[in-house]
Amino acid sequence: MVPASFRDAAASVLKVDFASASAAAQHHDRLTKPRGSLGRLEETGARLCAIARTCPPPVPEPVTVAVFAGDHGVVAERVTPWPQEVTAQMVANFCAGGAAVNVLARHANAQVVVVDVGVATDIPAEARGLVHRKVRRGTRNIAVEAAMTHHEAVAALDVGVEVANLAADRGARLLVSGDMGIGNTTPSAALIAALTSSSPTSVTGRGTGIDDVMLAHKVAVVEKALARVRPGAGPIGLLCELGGLEIAALAGFMVGGAAEHLPVVVDGVIAAAAALVATELAPDVIGYLIAGHRSSEPGSSTALKHLGLAPVVDLDLRLGEGSGALLAVHAVQAAAKILREMSTFDSAGVTDKADPRS
Amino acid sequence: MVPASFRDAAASVLKVDFASASAAAQHHDRLTKPRGSLGRLEETGARLCAIARTCPPPVPEPVTVAVFAGDHGVVAERVTPWPQEVTAQMVANFCAGGAAVNVLARHANAQVVVVDVGVATDIPAEARGLVHRKVRRGTRNIAVEAAMTHHEAVAALDVGVEVANLAADRGARLLVSGDMGIGNTTPSAALIAALTSSSPTSVTGRGTGIDDVMLAHKVAVVEKALARVRPGAGPIGLLCELGGLEIAALAGFMVGGAAEHLPVVVDGVIAAAAALVATELAPDVIGYLIAGHRSSEPGSSTALKHLGLAPVVDLDLRLGEGSGALLAVHAVQAAAKILREMSTFDSAGVTDKADPRS
Repeated sequence: MVPASFRDAAASVLKVDFASASAAAQHHDRLTKPRGSLGRLEETGARLCAIARTCPPPVPEPVTVAVFAGDHGVVAERVTPWPQEVTAQMVANFCAGGAAVNVLARHANAQVVVVDVGVATDIPAEARGLVHRKVRRGTRNIAVEAAMTHHEAVAALDVGVEVANLAADRGARLLVSGDMGIGNTTPSAALIAALTSSSPTSVTGRGTGIDDVMLAHKVAVVEKALARVRPGAGPIGLLCELGGLEIAALAGFMVGGAAEHLPVVVDGVIAAAAALVATELAPDVIGYLIAGHRSSEPGSSTALKHLGLAPVVDLDLRLGEGSGALLAVHAVQAAAKILREMSTFDSAGVTDKADPRS
Repeated sequence: MVPASFRDAAASVLKVDFASASAAAQHHDRLTKPRGSLGRLEETGARLCAIARTCPPPVPEPVTVAVFAGDHGVVAERVTPWPQEVTAQMVANFCAGGAAVNVLARHANAQVVVVDVGVATDIPAEARGLVHRKVRRGTRNIAVEAAMTHHEAVAALDVGVEVANLAADRGARLLVSGDMGIGNTTPSAALIAALTSSSPTSVTGRGTGIDDVMLAHKVAVVEKALARVRPGAGPIGLLCELGGLEIAALAGFMVGGAAEHLPVVVDGVIAAAAALVATELAPDVIGYLIAGHRSSEPGSSTALKHLGLAPVVDLDLRLGEGSGALLAVHAVQAAAKILREMSTFDSAGVTDKADPRS
């Protein structure tokens, strides 16, 4: 396969098919249940129809979750209590199958693809199956300078597109976004603030668990990073200034998935930041995104609201890795099966309340 | 198997084992993730440990969803636009495999057991596999008289216990509550109002979809039913005055599941009303209940808050049948697998932030 470029993928994203979503709404109303009683499961089913351009939609399986890993120069500002080498250690853990993403992927019958797009430290040699696409060893410190060059941002976007293409080529019909990067809630908060015109205070959270003092400092770091950004910077410009390599790759992965006409389940706050970037770069990507869950990180809700996406799962998760999105996969597939397998009022001989016989 | 009596089951419910829940909390903190980052999935895992009295808990499978069907005399008050015969028609639909509960049960690898505990009209003969335990043909109209006699309420409770026992005997390790009964959000609202000391206005909802005029009328019907109840009526007294046969059977099912040391996933507002009754009858049942979802019916939230249960799924569902609880099953099983399968910081060689090396 020729590695696809991000620009080609972005240019080839089709608007989803609203006629198929309408057909889903009509079909839902014929199924043996009160109209609308399956709530947001019905919305998800309609979304799958719009993406697949047919109703009922195919059940979205097999599933691939791609975990993009990268490090962040901003950890020099002490925005997290975790040492940077944990990114590499967790990559090894993903490859060994022992992390939460692995457990939840097995439970959802999903394949895990782990991609090093910018880990700073050496990854233990026993990390089998790792996709090596390191663009650079971690970003620069966004508190004082741009995270990456334009060339590096595009390279990371290209990695995401390539991974989406590869998954699609291998048969995946549902993509799930995952991430790993010590410190990555800080660039995510900065990107969400910039792309939704929100205050750093409102979108910066405790990440993996920090106290009030460290949170206030983290907000100040986000403010400092934002203060460097010149007005009018476009999405790639913002990625360069504020981003992370795994965030850029995730944005590319979403664009690549959309270009392949596949639904992409968006995980927590890191993926939500990437989704904001992806939809700025290629607005029609929005139709292919399904919000997996509402992270307890506040920027998640801000970003999802800006995107107009309602999360499937709301369990106060704040782990990342794709964990929340993988929990949502079961409901996403259920939404398709409802449209494919349920009887209609006519076929089951059930009286509809709107039926004149009643 | 000797059909168990409700009273024997209620007397044999053990308090869940809080020491195993504490062991789960400690084990969660050793797993390769930030502490608490799996949010309410960790709570669910701890609950499974408390129920199984061991940590890690077994994965709760196989799964049985029991759908108890009954009719309601209060439909004479025109509290729903659906004709009563739909209960019987839907029972046939459940037996034929075409309803939402069937689709979601197949998706969760759950067996569906359909129980007629009080359907008023004849059930189509082709309804195969139906468990015939009809206590009476629908309840009396709660707006004007007691729904059932004490003898009938106990008989329906016994049915629930029997179904739980039978499922456990056949190997089920996770029980899911389901219901069907045209008009059953009205007795549920009345029971929730009575058992949580809430106003009828705050707990009465639109059920399967009624307009403002019918809703105001439904609230008045609930008020009328509550006005008949003498102060100090116990839980069985309230079931007799305000209940439904399927609600009584669901309460018995929860008590029976708890007596068998099995987790029971509580579906929507009907099951929540039954859970209030079950925990009044046998307080230690509470430890065995997992709130499957938050129904869009307002009484659901009131009842869950009173019970101290946080729902797993929140998708604006209002169908019943066990649909929301079945969607939660995936997350419940995932919670067990997290405790069973994830690596620890030590075993994976990942640096813990609390580790002195950091």
